[in-house]
Parts: sequence; C-alpha cells; structure tokens
Amino acid sequence: MSSEYRLKRRVQFYETDTAGIVHFSWFFRYMEEAEHALWRENGLSIAPVNSEIGWPRVAATFDYHKPLHFEDEFEVVIRVAAITDKTIRYACAITQNDKKIATGTLTIACVSKRDQPMKSISIPPDIAARFQVAADEWQQ
Amino acid sequence: MSSEYRLKRRVQFYETDTAGIVHFSWFFRYMEEAEHALWRENGLSIAPVNSEIGWPRVAATFDYHKPLHFEDEFEVVIRVAAITDKTIRYACAITQNDKKIATGTLTIACVSKRDQPMKSISIPPDIAARFQVAADEWQQ
Amino acid sequence: MSSEYRLKRRVQFYETDTAGIVHFSWFFRYMEEAEHALWRENGLSIAPVNSEIGWPRVAATFDYHKPLHFEDEFEVVIRVAAITDKTIRYACAITQNDKKIATGTLTIACVSKRDQPMKSISIPPDIAARFQVAADEWQQ
Amino acid sequence: MSSEYRLKRRVQFYETDTAGIVHFSWFFRYMEEAEHALWRENGLSIAPVNSEIGWPRVAATFDYHKPLHFEDEFEVVIRVAAITDKTIRYACAITQNDKKIATGTLTIACVSKRDQPMKSISIPPDIAARFQVAADEWQQ
Repeated sequence: MSSEYRLKRRVQFYETDTAGIVHFSWFFRYMEEAEHALWRENGLSIAPVNSEIGWPRVAATFDYHKPLHFEDEFEVVIRVAAITDKTIRYACAITQNDKKIATGTLTIACVSKRDQPMKSISIPPDIAARFQVAADEWQQ
Repeated sequence: MSSEYRLKRRVQFYETDTAGIVHFSWFFRYMEEAEHALWRENGLSIAPVNSEIGWPRVAATFDYHKPLHFEDEFEVVIRVAAITDKTIRYACAITQNDKKIATGTLTIACVSKRDQPMKSISIPPDIAARFQVAADEWQQ
Repeated sequence: MSSEYRLKRRVQFYETDTAGIVHFSWFFRYMEEAEHALWRENGLSIAPVNSEIGWPRVAATFDYHKPLHFEDEFEVVIRVAAITDKTIRYACAITQNDKKIATGTLTIACVSKRDQPMKSISIPPDIAARFQVAADEWQQ
Repeated sequence: MSSEYRLKRRVQFYETDTAGIVHFSWFFRYMEEAEHALWRENGLSIAPVNSEIGWPRVAATFDYHKPLHFEDEFEVVIRVAAITDKTIRYACAITQNDKKIATGTLTIACVSKRDQPMKSISIPPDIAARFQVAADEWQQ
C-alpha cells in the first residue's frame, strides 16, 4: 500500500515544440504515467481488460515554473492528496535536480461503464484499501 | 480587435484512448488551437519566425463534465479573461450542441528569448493593443 | 462513391518539434484524418460504436521532401490505390501551394473484433461498394 | 561504437486509441526513442543545443503484425542498416516476449541548418566514426 510514486523520465524529441521546450500538454501525460505506475506498485491496473469500472479525469491543473528541454532527465512525484467515496485526488511535482519545474493536481472519479452515459459510483473497497493519503502534501 | 474566438472541431481517432473517449490531455491542445486562432484573427502569430519574444504557459486547468468520442463535433470558445503587464489569462469552454463538455483556463507570460533562462518582460504595446478583456466571463 | 479526399489543414503548435518543423510522426496522423474524412464522405464511419469489425493498419510509409512549419497551411490528398478481398491500400500526397511536401501509403485490413486475437475477414460488400480505386495514382 | 540499441518500454495509456490498441503513429515514435538512445550510447546527442547541423527524417515505414495494448511491455531494437555519405538508414523490430509485433525502417539525412531551406551535407567524420553497420539485418 503506497501513497506516492517517483518516476524517472527523460524528455523525448516528440515531446518538444518549436519553442525548444516540452509542450505544456505533455506534463499532464507525465503525471498520468506516474499515476498508473503508482497503481501498478499497489498491485492494480487502472484499466484492466473488460473491467466494468473506469476512472475518468474530472479535473487537472499544472503550474509551470521552468521549462524542460530535449533529453533532459527529470523526476515526476505523484502523491495521493485526498480520497473521497467516489474520487481520488493527486498532487504532483516535476523536478530536475531538485529544481522545481512544475506542480500539478489531478482528480479522478470512479464510474460504472455498464451505464451509458457513465455513472459515478463508490470506489470498490478492495481498490480504496490499496491507497492511503500521503502524510505531507506540498504547498502549492 | 477581438476578445473571443469560436473554433469548430471534430474528434480525431488518434485523440481517443482505450477508454473510448478523448484523452484528457487533448483538451489543453484544443484550448491552445483556439488561442492561436484568436491571435491570427487579431492579425498576430503567437510564434513568428525569429521572434525575440515568446509566450510560455504558466498555468493551465481543465474541469471535465462529459466525455467526447471519435468523430464527435464540438466547439471550443476561448475568451480573454484578464491582461496584466506581463501575462494574459484566458477562459475556455468546450461544448457539444450547447451541452457543457469541459471548462478550462490558461495563463501565458511574455518572455524575452534573448535571455537564457527566459526572462519575463512587459507585453509589447502593439500586441497588448490587439486584445481586450471579454465583457462577460463564464462562471466556473 | 468517392475514391479521393482533399483535406485542407493548418499546422498546430503541438505538432512541431524543437527542430522547428512538424514531427515526422504527424504525417501519419494527417493521412489518417484524410482517410476518415473520405469514409465519412462515402457515408461511413471507420469505427462506428459497437461495430463488430475493425480496420487495423498493416503497413504505413512516408517519404519526406520538404518540412512544414507552425501555422503553415497545407493539403492532404488521399486516394484509394487498391482494394483486395480483405485490404484497402491508399496513396497520399501532402502539398503546400502545389509544392510536394511528402508522399505516403497506408494499407488497412478488415478484421472481426469478436475473435481475440483479431482475425482478418473479407470486407463486407456494403462497405466495399462505397469505394473504388482511383483512376490515376501518383508516381512515387 | 555501437550499431544497435535495445529499448525496453511499456505502453502508456495515452498511446492507445478507441480500438483498444496502440495507435499506429506511435510506433514511429518508439523507433525514434530507440534511435536517440543509440546516439546517446555512442556519446552523441542527435540535437545538441545550438548545433549547426540537423537530422531530418527522409523516409519511414512500418509493417504491423500484432497489436500492443495498455501496459504491455515490449522491446524496440534498432540497428544501423546502411550509412552513405549523407544519410543513415536504420532497421527496427518491435517485439513482445520474442513475438514479432512490427518491423520498421527509418532513413535520416544530415543537413546544414545555416542554410534556409535546409541543405543536405556530408555526415561529419567524427559522427560517422561513431556508427557502424550492423552485421546482420533482419529479413523484412
């Protein structure tokens, strides 16, 4: 049972743009990569084949402090910031050599995929039991 | 001089994910497409060749209400929500047949590219003069 | 019944890379955008909801002649080059003001999604009847 | 001096599409990731800051044999297939547990970035010396 995951990553060429830096949309993908790695570390997949539940994103934010460039090595830390009956909220920090690059948040909701449109449901207890809220959250 | 742009768009296959909906990272790209179209409508490019200034994103958010699917037609409306000496803030609404899909915000800063690292500078008057704050901003 | 589609398009910022040009992987997406627009023009969706058949790509190529840059306007022309019992092959040309930017090919196969792994099947007659091979294919 | 690189990789959620498999355009990015890792292993960056030369892609192909799904682990092997005065050609194989997923090729050209439009030039000897053609290339 883990409340945090640290992902080491390198900037790929296709993640950069004509301004010579990582396009801002990529930070949301970096955050999600770390989220899914956290789930795997907790023995779960966020999207198992034929699962009857899903985890759509309901809110996402990033504040950008410094740019990343091609081939830069960086770290993505994601922490569980809050768990409610139907949602999980994460806080994320992207750093490079302990320098703060960007900070983000992500809120996901548990939904039943049997219903169309998707309907929000309580997080199954066996999943909720795998996560705990991180003791200290970053100030943002 | 325009404070708003409406972009009509259709969901492309590569924008969807294995959950069958548009990946949440794409909404940030939709918002930026509309932003750059607004600049063009105001007679500007946000990234002219050899420009000495740039417009990195300093904050971006989205709240997601309903999903979009392959081939869905939708509309992206972006409005200038605030202009300061060095930044522009936009509000964005993504709708499908007047149904609210998602709402976002984007703040960009004006920087000098001659300095490394990039340094925040005042928005040049001839650019600031092309934008005005929208009269009514959506409640979010 | 149409054997060709012409798509007008503008380069988006997130499609460019740190070399200042459109990343080569995007040309495959441009080609697919035009393919799906051709299907729509022929009254079809290549991926209807709950369809029992699918159209995975079995081969794709591009030759690159000139680069595209941010905000460039260009045209994507896709043509049906060949139809067999189980496959469709397209030829694609990307041009800018009649200047040749890139030329590509794409071969797709019809598969049954009821079988796992996917199994190649004959193209349903009502779909095959909507396409015809273009009279003239570009020399490549 | 290395003529081959093996990259281990896992499918990310944003690389999949609504068909439930990795979108075909991603294989070109996987191939490029492995290419750039090969350059780093040989002590080089393919895009150093302020470099006067660049390496645009002039041709790229993929043949797809089996699909990849979310969280699949796979391997990308890239080999130098040929070196000419001005170009490098690679062959690439993507495998999953020794099962062939896809095979690709990539040809890049050396260009001077001081000239606009970019002009093809001879590969600098200190770069050419870092690569050698792989002894055995896959049959494709």
